[in-house]
Amino acid sequence: MARVLLRIYLTSGTPLGPGKVQLLESVRDTGSISAAARALKMSYRSAWLRIDSMNSAFRTPLVRTTLGGQGGGAAVLTALGTSVVGRFRSMEAATRRAVARDLAAVEKGLRPGRPRPRSTARSPKSR
Amino acid sequence: MARVLLRIYLTSGTPLGPGKVQLLESVRDTGSISAAARALKMSYRSAWLRIDSMNSAFRTPLVRTTLGGQGGGAAVLTALGTSVVGRFRSMEAATRRAVARDLAAVEKGLRPGRPRPRSTARSPKSR
Repeated sequence: MARVLLRIYLTSGTPLGPGKVQLLESVRDTGSISAAARALKMSYRSAWLRIDSMNSAFRTPLVRTTLGGQGGGAAVLTALGTSVVGRFRSMEAATRRAVARDLAAVEKGLRPGRPRPRSTARSPKSR
Repeated sequence: MARVLLRIYLTSGTPLGPGKVQLLESVRDTGSISAAARALKMSYRSAWLRIDSMNSAFRTPLVRTTLGGQGGGAAVLTALGTSVVGRFRSMEAATRRAVARDLAAVEKGLRPGRPRPRSTARSPKSR
């Protein structure tokens, strides 16, 4: 099965692709940047930098962090963050639908990965 | 204006994106791999490797080369190559249409690039 990758370069210059969106989803699901980074096998620094670049590109942050408390700071996806995640996943789904026919036609041109079993076809010799 | 990048990972594992498709178009327009590579500021080797990987992924080559002749070998885009280029550009256009509404909504959340002139708004002090 072919995979379709959608990446958007926003007017601000900020790239928005499946990696950043997955990170936002992981923050939403884990409630912290460090847990999200761990879940995605990414360094805390790398996760923080990505989130910081998204936060500064938008009018209001996509992720809001709170300091301290038991077990360290927490992070939540804001309403805008939730909206960006939802819109991106919706764009991905719309893209998959939009390319389906052309993609199937391109795939027909591919060399078969492994020879097809000839269970129904008989070789001339067997007749 | 936001830009939309579409990249396909074909079932064969071959990535197909705007770079490879532009290379195929350049071969079509220049009639040779070396001229296409020059036009895209790419090494001949890099262009050749990309074309070779596409050629071996498909049942029949996307680019066919002829040896010798005056001015060295020529290269032409085959019917399958032409079809793959057309389908990819069509998938890109379909993607842009498919994401337009969600993308416009995401862009509305962006921080304005430069502070808007406040020509119509009056500051409280001026009243």
